[in-house]
Amino acid sequence: MENFKFYSPTDFVFGKNAENEVGSLLKMQHATKVFIHFGGGSVVRSGLLGRIEAQLKLNHIDYVILGGVKPNPLDTLVYEGISICKKEKVDFVLAVGGGSAIDSAKAVAAGAKYDGDFWDFYDGKASIEDALPVGVVLTIPAAGSEASMSSVITKTDGMLKRGIGSRFYRPLFAVMNPELTYTLPAYQTSAGIVDMMSHIFERYLTKSTGVDLTDRLSEATLISIMDAARVIQKDSKNYDARATICWAGTIAHNGILAVGRIEDWSTHALEHELSALYDVTHGAGLAVMFPAYMKYTLEEDVNRYYQLATRVFGVTPNETKKRMVALSGISKLEEFYHEIGMPLTFNEIGAKKEDIDILLEKLKINRGDRFGSFKVLTLDDARKIYELACY
Amino acid sequence: MENFKFYSPTDFVFGKNAENEVGSLLKMQHATKVFIHFGGGSVVRSGLLGRIEAQLKLNHIDYVILGGVKPNPLDTLVYEGISICKKEKVDFVLAVGGGSAIDSAKAVAAGAKYDGDFWDFYDGKASIEDALPVGVVLTIPAAGSEASMSSVITKTDGMLKRGIGSRFYRPLFAVMNPELTYTLPAYQTSAGIVDMMSHIFERYLTKSTGVDLTDRLSEATLISIMDAARVIQKDSKNYDARATICWAGTIAHNGILAVGRIEDWSTHALEHELSALYDVTHGAGLAVMFPAYMKYTLEEDVNRYYQLATRVFGVTPNETKKRMVALSGISKLEEFYHEIGMPLTFNEIGAKKEDIDILLEKLKINRGDRFGSFKVLTLDDARKIYELACY
Repeated sequence: MENFKFYSPTDFVFGKNAENEVGSLLKMQHATKVFIHFGGGSVVRSGLLGRIEAQLKLNHIDYVILGGVKPNPLDTLVYEGISICKKEKVDFVLAVGGGSAIDSAKAVAAGAKYDGDFWDFYDGKASIEDALPVGVVLTIPAAGSEASMSSVITKTDGMLKRGIGSRFYRPLFAVMNPELTYTLPAYQTSAGIVDMMSHIFERYLTKSTGVDLTDRLSEATLISIMDAARVIQKDSKNYDARATICWAGTIAHNGILAVGRIEDWSTHALEHELSALYDVTHGAGLAVMFPAYMKYTLEEDVNRYYQLATRVFGVTPNETKKRMVALSGISKLEEFYHEIGMPLTFNEIGAKKEDIDILLEKLKINRGDRFGSFKVLTLDDARKIYELACY
Repeated sequence: MENFKFYSPTDFVFGKNAENEVGSLLKMQHATKVFIHFGGGSVVRSGLLGRIEAQLKLNHIDYVILGGVKPNPLDTLVYEGISICKKEKVDFVLAVGGGSAIDSAKAVAAGAKYDGDFWDFYDGKASIEDALPVGVVLTIPAAGSEASMSSVITKTDGMLKRGIGSRFYRPLFAVMNPELTYTLPAYQTSAGIVDMMSHIFERYLTKSTGVDLTDRLSEATLISIMDAARVIQKDSKNYDARATICWAGTIAHNGILAVGRIEDWSTHALEHELSALYDVTHGAGLAVMFPAYMKYTLEEDVNRYYQLATRVFGVTPNETKKRMVALSGISKLEEFYHEIGMPLTFNEIGAKKEDIDILLEKLKINRGDRFGSFKVLTLDDARKIYELACY
């Protein structure tokens, strides 16, 4: 087991009508002027924004709003948010939505306390020394950003997608009402499920040893996610299943399933180029990339893939045919993704084999010539993994 | 799944030489005068206290020390600590040790900011509105107090053992070096293991439904604990196994395995009377009480015990003989406790059947006529459970 630090200070309020606690949570944080940041019109149409505004008014907390965050959130809106926060002397940032709204809100929070260009943080030119406090009302479980230290932003100029982490990016509170997710389109629900499973895989596929507890916790979460996903396929308003998915998304990315091991994140790197180039939903891109990555890295640690296959995917153990068992596990994952309506190939997401050179160019800019740890990938490895996803 | 709040803000620094970070952690918390609280001489003999003192000196942080915390920590030392903290204008409480030192430190931290008698908190006469910040250097994994919101103190007058919880009792940081646990006596290691498993059982045995994720995370932790315990039986200096036990103790009691369900804590109540009357080690008392409690409550939810038996204790599933399978699971738990040198009967811990009336009298004072939720226990139920442990 590797030495580790784990810090997940977010105050979670979870359950039916949880959003009614936003006012008192903001008061507890002594917020006086709140920047409310969200995405599309569903937050408005559903009446959620109105209910939140009503609470702020009731608690005499002033606020400004900025909607319009898109999936794969762009730097342009972040700049706009920063400018508003500075001008309006905002002292608290409240994200209402899913990973994109939260990631954008985090960037705004850091930028609002910085004199330079916030992109410096994402470019590795500066590190975050201060940020406005961030709170979250979650409506889309997927990215785990409601508890994580990370934020991913895309620079419009060149469509560079970059993720960073900071202690300042841990939200102070996260309000999570699974009922708010009932109306999510099936595709988005499934993409979120792939995303959270991927957050686990990126840590599960490690060369670190002696991490049995973290392994088992990860396996437990994966099984629960898949079971709940299958329930939701048939009954989109099943509270317990929706609640399981909501909470699993948090668990998958608040760091608890990372302790004691070296993380990888290669597949996210590979996928980021896909979603930056084609504007494909992140989770859908991951459904395409992860099985390909797994097949390509199978030989790195057949035992680990064997463990995954037997403990999570229900493949019958067979010590003499470990490789075959391990491969069956990957097939089961593909079957599951297919079952929940996720794509498995370049073709299904409108990606093209002939664009691989472009993907690799961007990858080189964003990640350099070599990246990853479970298997250190060269750009040639990356090419082969992209090709495996083209079948 | 029940609505829940989850808040575990502790900053964990885990691994080899983690204690070397104490100075910088205290500085980050702006501590200027620290009250260092610990138990027996092992913290002194091992040189740990000296190393911590050296770091404080290096960082120009003033401190006072108070050792002498005993298992089942007493109010008398808490009063002494409060008096020191008030007199010396302490602004940070650092516990060095296990659950007893931490629980005592928490009580001191609350009492130091209270004008009345700190026992008011434990007596339910007052609730904690403020407390000095608490940090922890953990040397005994068991109680989970390094992350939990709870503290259990025994009032010398009448030997009343009472536990309470407060947001103010969440330590700000916890430094955990598994190597510090190498020299723990085998009995104490095992008692700690029983304690953390019990923290899981108290939540696992619930009537709440739709808690599949929390169930599976709990089962994962139980399996890992038992596997690591068996390794430690043979090799007390196995780093990964010691690290697993350390971290499992935290996971078991920081609340993550409680989310979404109603907790019980009846068995802790039953055990508290044992350890208060006979001064038996808490974990050893729990090893005696839990199998008895489980047998007594089996009919409350055979399916839950069946799930425990098949998923955790490796009993072969047999849907037509659920009760038998469930009972086999409890037997496996007893075998495991026996394997790690833990007692299973009143006799083995020096408790007497003829004292049951005294135990029940205390229980009535501390918990009233009825308590628990998985099965609401009357004092007559409690008598029968105690009797089951007398065999």
